[in-house]
Amino acid sequence: MILTVTLNAALDLTYRVPRLLPHTEHRVDRSAERPGGKGLNVARVLAALGHDAVVTGFAGGPTGETLRRLLAETAPGVTDALASISGTTRRTVAVVDESTGDTTQLNEAGPEVTQEEWIAFEDRYVRLLAGAEAVALCGSLPPGVPVGAYAHLVRQARARQVPVVLDTSGEPLRRGIAARPDLVKPNAAELAALTGSTAPLEAARDARRRGAHAVAASLGSEGMVAVTPDGTWRATPPRPVRGNPTGAGDAAVAALLAAWHLPWPDRLARAVALSAATVNAPVAGEFDAALYEELLPKVRVTMA
Amino acid sequence: MILTVTLNAALDLTYRVPRLLPHTEHRVDRSAERPGGKGLNVARVLAALGHDAVVTGFAGGPTGETLRRLLAETAPGVTDALASISGTTRRTVAVVDESTGDTTQLNEAGPEVTQEEWIAFEDRYVRLLAGAEAVALCGSLPPGVPVGAYAHLVRQARARQVPVVLDTSGEPLRRGIAARPDLVKPNAAELAALTGSTAPLEAARDARRRGAHAVAASLGSEGMVAVTPDGTWRATPPRPVRGNPTGAGDAAVAALLAAWHLPWPDRLARAVALSAATVNAPVAGEFDAALYEELLPKVRVTMA
Repeated sequence: MILTVTLNAALDLTYRVPRLLPHTEHRVDRSAERPGGKGLNVARVLAALGHDAVVTGFAGGPTGETLRRLLAETAPGVTDALASISGTTRRTVAVVDESTGDTTQLNEAGPEVTQEEWIAFEDRYVRLLAGAEAVALCGSLPPGVPVGAYAHLVRQARARQVPVVLDTSGEPLRRGIAARPDLVKPNAAELAALTGSTAPLEAARDARRRGAHAVAASLGSEGMVAVTPDGTWRATPPRPVRGNPTGAGDAAVAALLAAWHLPWPDRLARAVALSAATVNAPVAGEFDAALYEELLPKVRVTMA
Repeated sequence: MILTVTLNAALDLTYRVPRLLPHTEHRVDRSAERPGGKGLNVARVLAALGHDAVVTGFAGGPTGETLRRLLAETAPGVTDALASISGTTRRTVAVVDESTGDTTQLNEAGPEVTQEEWIAFEDRYVRLLAGAEAVALCGSLPPGVPVGAYAHLVRQARARQVPVVLDTSGEPLRRGIAARPDLVKPNAAELAALTGSTAPLEAARDARRRGAHAVAASLGSEGMVAVTPDGTWRATPPRPVRGNPTGAGDAAVAALLAAWHLPWPDRLARAVALSAATVNAPVAGEFDAALYEELLPKVRVTMA
């Protein structure tokens, strides 16, 4: 099985309004509620690709119960190995302005995780690693979890020869990358924040020097660039990719995990095609299978 | 006891952000969750004033459970007589922009109430009326509840000689007012939508002609105007009243209910002072008791 870790899972609410006007009142006639968090999205895509996917991380309170119920209902192929905590799982609210299609995002910080809960989680993680072909560490850290958490989880995976992908940002990324994960998958903004460089290729090279064995950066509509021990590649979709950037990044992580033993050009082509195929899907963690099959042979991969 | 009816109760979320920028992502470090809906706020104020307050209406799903738990925890003086339903209680999200103090409001529409649930509620309401000194019917209607619901509930109260206050808007107000409630408490916008007139006194007179025995309109920082069988009055706070308009309107309803047998000038003075005293309180349903005592003798009530 492939394990994904979501320490700060969320109950994602999507509100559609005809037009978002700050400082006014809006009646929301169309709302949706779904289990969220990057690692959960990655697991949903993996399950849809036919892989055995297990999610772990934290869930608690009424929102945590709702998240687990919706996960069981909407992603029966994903195994729930989340740890129950005393705090309450956060919500995120995405307000979609139907006049422009743009989204305004409001993300709660997350529950306070106690030291005991964190220690118990480390044990759970090590037990789950024993059965994992690969592991993805995804998203932000909730309050209470040490900022070096991902560095620790990366080291545990490396010590057990379980390939590990890190997809986070800010200080957790900076610390985690130094623990030498097999792969990091930042987007352009995360890479720029880490390295100070807005030139993606240069920034990806810098990120690799910081400790990652390979860096695959997602560049939105421009596809991906990867700096790896085997070479440096650029993968470009046949037409610009637009849409939900969270979903696209999570699909890329899922594709990179699912094609772990293929050569880099093939892995990148799959990641870019799968990202593009999530754009037509209304929610993160879902993709358009026919579009994926159509796009896959058309992705252009060149050495950079 | 005084009964308040909230057919579309809500779990109110308040998110504070340094600045709300549409089409960007915001991390919400300060969030609060509380039981919401106009009738619940009115009951909280009544309980704080020393009255025996009972709330009824609908609650269901995980958000409904959280609402009831928080109501018991934060308003122990309020009796919960809400009816459980199969649907899920709605959420409202208030996004406070800390750079301006302004609020952007997102209100879910509410659960679908079945015909059986509505019929069962009518029975519950009539049983509760038997012990009520007065009743307030507050807020919007959830999907599934007939648009003439308030008209029906007004008639039931009138038939049992229980004084009834109606505080709603739109078509439910238009229909409800025709059933001859003892009092309606619109704000300026609701009054204008009902009557087509933006002159509050003229609009209040028009609203009274539509069936209400008395109309007390809340005019924000300008206080209130009342058109009643005993005369027409204007009540003005000693200084402009600004802040949470929902909380101010609900406090006015609570004051008008609590002082039912006093002369109109006294009732209005209390309503305006209590509205002003809620402005200093961070959340609807709470007020600053010392400020209320200070402002009460200073409210100016004149015949209009």
